[in-house]
Amino acid sequence: METLRQRWRHIIFGTDTPAGQMFDMLLIGAILGSVIAVMLDSVSSIREEYGVLLYAAEWFFTLLFTVEYAIRLWVSDRPLRYARSFFGVVDLLSVIPTYLSLFIPGSNYLLTIRALRVLRVFRVMKLAKFMGEANQLGIALVRTRRKIAVFMFSVFVVIIIFGSLMYVVEGPENGFSSIPQSIYWAIVTITTVGYGDISPQTGLGKLIASLAMITGYAIIAVPTGIVTAEISAARVSMRYERECPGCHRHSHEPDARFCLQCGEELPKLSLKGPDD
Amino acid sequence: METLRQRWRHIIFGTDTPAGQMFDMLLIGAILGSVIAVMLDSVSSIREEYGVLLYAAEWFFTLLFTVEYAIRLWVSDRPLRYARSFFGVVDLLSVIPTYLSLFIPGSNYLLTIRALRVLRVFRVMKLAKFMGEANQLGIALVRTRRKIAVFMFSVFVVIIIFGSLMYVVEGPENGFSSIPQSIYWAIVTITTVGYGDISPQTGLGKLIASLAMITGYAIIAVPTGIVTAEISAARVSMRYERECPGCHRHSHEPDARFCLQCGEELPKLSLKGPDD
Amino acid sequence: METLRQRWRHIIFGTDTPAGQMFDMLLIGAILGSVIAVMLDSVSSIREEYGVLLYAAEWFFTLLFTVEYAIRLWVSDRPLRYARSFFGVVDLLSVIPTYLSLFIPGSNYLLTIRALRVLRVFRVMKLAKFMGEANQLGIALVRTRRKIAVFMFSVFVVIIIFGSLMYVVEGPENGFSSIPQSIYWAIVTITTVGYGDISPQTGLGKLIASLAMITGYAIIAVPTGIVTAEISAARVSMRYERECPGCHRHSHEPDARFCLQCGEELPKLSLKGPDD
Amino acid sequence: METLRQRWRHIIFGTDTPAGQMFDMLLIGAILGSVIAVMLDSVSSIREEYGVLLYAAEWFFTLLFTVEYAIRLWVSDRPLRYARSFFGVVDLLSVIPTYLSLFIPGSNYLLTIRALRVLRVFRVMKLAKFMGEANQLGIALVRTRRKIAVFMFSVFVVIIIFGSLMYVVEGPENGFSSIPQSIYWAIVTITTVGYGDISPQTGLGKLIASLAMITGYAIIAVPTGIVTAEISAARVSMRYERECPGCHRHSHEPDARFCLQCGEELPKLSLKGPDD
Repeated sequence: METLRQRWRHIIFGTDTPAGQMFDMLLIGAILGSVIAVMLDSVSSIREEYGVLLYAAEWFFTLLFTVEYAIRLWVSDRPLRYARSFFGVVDLLSVIPTYLSLFIPGSNYLLTIRALRVLRVFRVMKLAKFMGEANQLGIALVRTRRKIAVFMFSVFVVIIIFGSLMYVVEGPENGFSSIPQSIYWAIVTITTVGYGDISPQTGLGKLIASLAMITGYAIIAVPTGIVTAEISAARVSMRYERECPGCHRHSHEPDARFCLQCGEELPKLSLKGPDD
Repeated sequence: METLRQRWRHIIFGTDTPAGQMFDMLLIGAILGSVIAVMLDSVSSIREEYGVLLYAAEWFFTLLFTVEYAIRLWVSDRPLRYARSFFGVVDLLSVIPTYLSLFIPGSNYLLTIRALRVLRVFRVMKLAKFMGEANQLGIALVRTRRKIAVFMFSVFVVIIIFGSLMYVVEGPENGFSSIPQSIYWAIVTITTVGYGDISPQTGLGKLIASLAMITGYAIIAVPTGIVTAEISAARVSMRYERECPGCHRHSHEPDARFCLQCGEELPKLSLKGPDD
Repeated sequence: METLRQRWRHIIFGTDTPAGQMFDMLLIGAILGSVIAVMLDSVSSIREEYGVLLYAAEWFFTLLFTVEYAIRLWVSDRPLRYARSFFGVVDLLSVIPTYLSLFIPGSNYLLTIRALRVLRVFRVMKLAKFMGEANQLGIALVRTRRKIAVFMFSVFVVIIIFGSLMYVVEGPENGFSSIPQSIYWAIVTITTVGYGDISPQTGLGKLIASLAMITGYAIIAVPTGIVTAEISAARVSMRYERECPGCHRHSHEPDARFCLQCGEELPKLSLKGPDD
Repeated sequence: METLRQRWRHIIFGTDTPAGQMFDMLLIGAILGSVIAVMLDSVSSIREEYGVLLYAAEWFFTLLFTVEYAIRLWVSDRPLRYARSFFGVVDLLSVIPTYLSLFIPGSNYLLTIRALRVLRVFRVMKLAKFMGEANQLGIALVRTRRKIAVFMFSVFVVIIIFGSLMYVVEGPENGFSSIPQSIYWAIVTITTVGYGDISPQTGLGKLIASLAMITGYAIIAVPTGIVTAEISAARVSMRYERECPGCHRHSHEPDARFCLQCGEELPKLSLKGPDD
């Protein structure tokens, strides 16, 4: 006999039972509905007409998600672990803004953080293949974290230098009103966004700005190179996965006949299409 | 003896006969002419002077393409299959706007959808090599579809978060008049387009905008990495098709006749090379 | 005994003799000087003060380059071949605008085409390594030409569709005054340049523009992937170059002991650093 | 017995002793503090209120760094070598602007060059792994320097041509007031920054600008391809270091103990792996 707690756990965590699938579909629907409601509420013409309805919807979804959060804590074997997991934090952040808006008006627009909950869709739809791809991508990106950190750190130092140089050259009369403002300009320029809300007016300023642009245009090659090299490597190593019967090593070259770790003969590789 | 239907089929689908080639050249010419006519018609100074002529041209091309569409349906062995194919849909969409413009003024400018018909040029010019390249590219891109989908989905969630954060921070008085409007700003910023029609005015807004820009600048590396890895892999996937009978080496260049490791003669490879 | 023609040929084409080196240095100096003179002449404040001097400099350099062009034709064994080569055409275009400016005022600013002559610097400085790199790059890019052409053609069709869609949606009252103008906007947007001189005003227009931006942001991955895959392949194949003593094939895998084409044993590969 | 000089050397260069670690932490703190002080001083509202305090802080940090620089010169075995090293020059440039501001007002904002000193953080935190990544990145980038130089040189010539073409076509009345100004526009456009402070007004100008944008959009693939190929190569260059005594295969993973082709034991590899 199932207890109530067990039954709820099957509904919430089960993806095979009809009840679990129904719950997942309703949850995704509720998340999308609540995000759209917050968005519509921010459009003044819609709020004027349907404000009461949207306010009701906001509290309805918030109470729903609060109950859901409580049940998740209740049925979880390790409630604290769930509460500190990525989705646990997101689930909590998805309900706080409404309660907060009772004290701080406007904070309920932060409810769109609920959009992050939509990422559950990967699990809900049992898109194992998508999850595999997402994991593969995630692993590759995690492996590049140190190289990317070194790169971003260096870029940030370059941005500070360019920013303060432009502050000295252009000065407040041309819109570069302070060094933080100039650094904002440098970020806008080096990332090639280029709003044009602040732009150099003097000849020397334009020369320095040109250097900043060319720098930004050229160095985008670096993170791209880092990530590409890693994804290429991850792609190759995952494609030809075979387990050694001797030492259980997984990663082997496609043309390997013997394990490079223990010398055991490997099972033959029947080449599959790369992703399908 | 050919029936009329067979003769037309040879004209429309044949690429080797003089009649078929003539038809293809005329068709491409008519497509280009009709697209240019629609474009010119939209320039008010030209329309004022040559409006009647361009109107006549539009109906001429539309009737021509309508007849062509009817003939294609008629001569095709599986008319429904053609009608639902990519080019079948494009062919239909290429004539509808003119008829529609009798009821909804202005809809005839959608006739530029005819530009899609120009893609037939690949077939017409019998550019087998170009088609091979296009196929190779297409296969590589299709294989990345799931990774790209995961990436785009994640980016879209990030865009929603940034958008609503800016709506709360900057607010309607600085141009961020609603969350959809702020999301539009976030897309403009993260894709590094940067029109500057909406830009942050407050210090905190500029800080968040800077984060959005750096995010957009850095994550472009991800789809690039995915696509590059796939295209690279498409180039090398030919290599693991044969085993050397002498030393059991698997990895051989497509044009290898002897094993590069032991000098043994290799079995013949019947597959075609990737680029030539 | 050298004839005058032979002596001039040694001066112009020689890169080893002192006279040849002196000529090359003077030529690069004259090219740079003439380009800078044209640039300065376009700045109105400078032209007002030094106009006569810059006008004299322009005619001095033009006559100098005209004489040089004549001598090159004279000393060349195949004058027509030189005249039709890349540098031959550039050399001619470098002098024409000045003569043309006698009839069409303002055309002398096209003299900056002379900047192309600066590319001779690669030869002058005998930067064999640079030339090797340039060739390697050039070969890789030439190999991608068909794939890039297919890509650019498809992008252009997408640009036409987006452009005319926006013309219908936004219309002349929002700056999209004609389809060519809308296509210009689509190019500005899809290449992520984003001037902001024309930007969508309506909600539907912003939605379509967002799609255009995301398209432009995502598809940049395609040419990058194509070029990267080709450069990677070129890099690997050039690095391990060995000639087979039997059949003279050049390209071999780094771990090859026997020629994959004729089975002959290959010379050992002493691994060098990749570029130095 | 340590002399005073030896003791200071241990403090400044030591990273293992408590005194050395304390010094490093204080130094990073002082660098960050001094950079933030300069930034705050440039914000007029803050300067008005805390100007005296920030002025004092600036002189405090400057005198501190001056003393530190003197001590580094004193304790160094080769003072000249330190003075000419990257960090030696940065250390000197970090104090000069304050002294210079006694004569040239405003030059003290160049103090943000001190931000470069923050790069010492890599050493201070003994982030050996980060340094390894930085080195690996640096080596790959250094190897691409010639290809990148050829590319940048060619791009610059293209920019000059586009710039002067637009000067002739658009002219001063549309904001293209001189060739240097037009070249600035060309850089803004080709790097896809797109401020929009100068943009083409005529039809022909928009056509040329479109070509410039598409050029800039497409050629970003080239440096990305160069850098990616080099980073990828740096990852795999470890593989061709050992030959199997059984089957003479050369290509083995760095962590292989047995040949993956014949199962023979491989000679030990003394080199370290690329990433760990």
